[in-house]
Amino acid sequence: MVRASEMSIRVLRVENRFVRDDRTLTHLCLVSRALGAEAIYLEDVEKDILGTVAEVNKTWGGTFKVILGEPWKTVLKQAKAEGRKTVHLTMYGLPLQEVIDQLRRLDKILVVVGGPKVPGKVYHEVDYNVAVTSQPHSEIAALAIVLHEIQSGEELRRNFASGRLKILPSPKSKKVVEST
Amino acid sequence: MVRASEMSIRVLRVENRFVRDDRTLTHLCLVSRALGAEAIYLEDVEKDILGTVAEVNKTWGGTFKVILGEPWKTVLKQAKAEGRKTVHLTMYGLPLQEVIDQLRRLDKILVVVGGPKVPGKVYHEVDYNVAVTSQPHSEIAALAIVLHEIQSGEELRRNFASGRLKILPSPKSKKVVEST
Repeated sequence: MVRASEMSIRVLRVENRFVRDDRTLTHLCLVSRALGAEAIYLEDVEKDILGTVAEVNKTWGGTFKVILGEPWKTVLKQAKAEGRKTVHLTMYGLPLQEVIDQLRRLDKILVVVGGPKVPGKVYHEVDYNVAVTSQPHSEIAALAIVLHEIQSGEELRRNFASGRLKILPSPKSKKVVEST
Repeated sequence: MVRASEMSIRVLRVENRFVRDDRTLTHLCLVSRALGAEAIYLEDVEKDILGTVAEVNKTWGGTFKVILGEPWKTVLKQAKAEGRKTVHLTMYGLPLQEVIDQLRRLDKILVVVGGPKVPGKVYHEVDYNVAVTSQPHSEIAALAIVLHEIQSGEELRRNFASGRLKILPSPKSKKVVEST
């Protein structure tokens, strides 16, 4: 099993240009960042999202990156060339609980997240098609659970360096401290 | 520890009428359903979402319910009256990994999910304020990880009765069978 701190995890969103939904893309970016991925690839996106993520990095720390404009085929090809295994999330795939032990042994991973109509080719070109239940729900939720499981929950303890603000966890209130 | 099949989990979305976002609400409904909650309370919502969830139940099974129009205070009060513990998800709360053992001992739970501006009173009236990382990300992702952790992953194996369609998990393709 590879420790979360020694994993390199990236996320690729395969987009459908006809049903673009910037709110969902923002969630995918922030979830990827908060749960330990180092970057997300978006094929095409409003510049707003770059600004949102830059602002979150500045305020809350870390070096998470949004990489724009690479076609999904190029990203998959690059991943393979650098020995990165590709894991596509789909309700049609193999149950997460059956493949999780294999995924935890990988050190370089590209998690591929589709929208409503992913090209059939994606299913064939990835190393794993993985289902978080065989029920329809949310690519945001599926991504969260897969990042969480691959890292065995260690991502919840991750430290984000150089942020302006930091939360002091509290049972009943909001406590935030400013970095000095 | 209570087994997932013996838990009763409900979800309450505390809404902010000024930033309503039906796409996010749809994700919250479908995630709640797929990950083993029995119902979600929404304060106010487009009728569309009711139709979407009814269609998903009919196609993919189960009896998940969307309950509309109850103010959050009423839902919290009812929860307390029936001995249901309330767990509010917020980046300011106590780390999930520190409270998860307590949460797994509960048999009746109301998970409270806020939007961008949750009234401060919510923090005081719930039993637990819980953080899935102290970083900003997505209430959809936080809900998914909390449902998953409370049920120790058993929800991934849940069976949905009486659906019209069922997926046969597959490593490379989409296989769906129709119920007879």
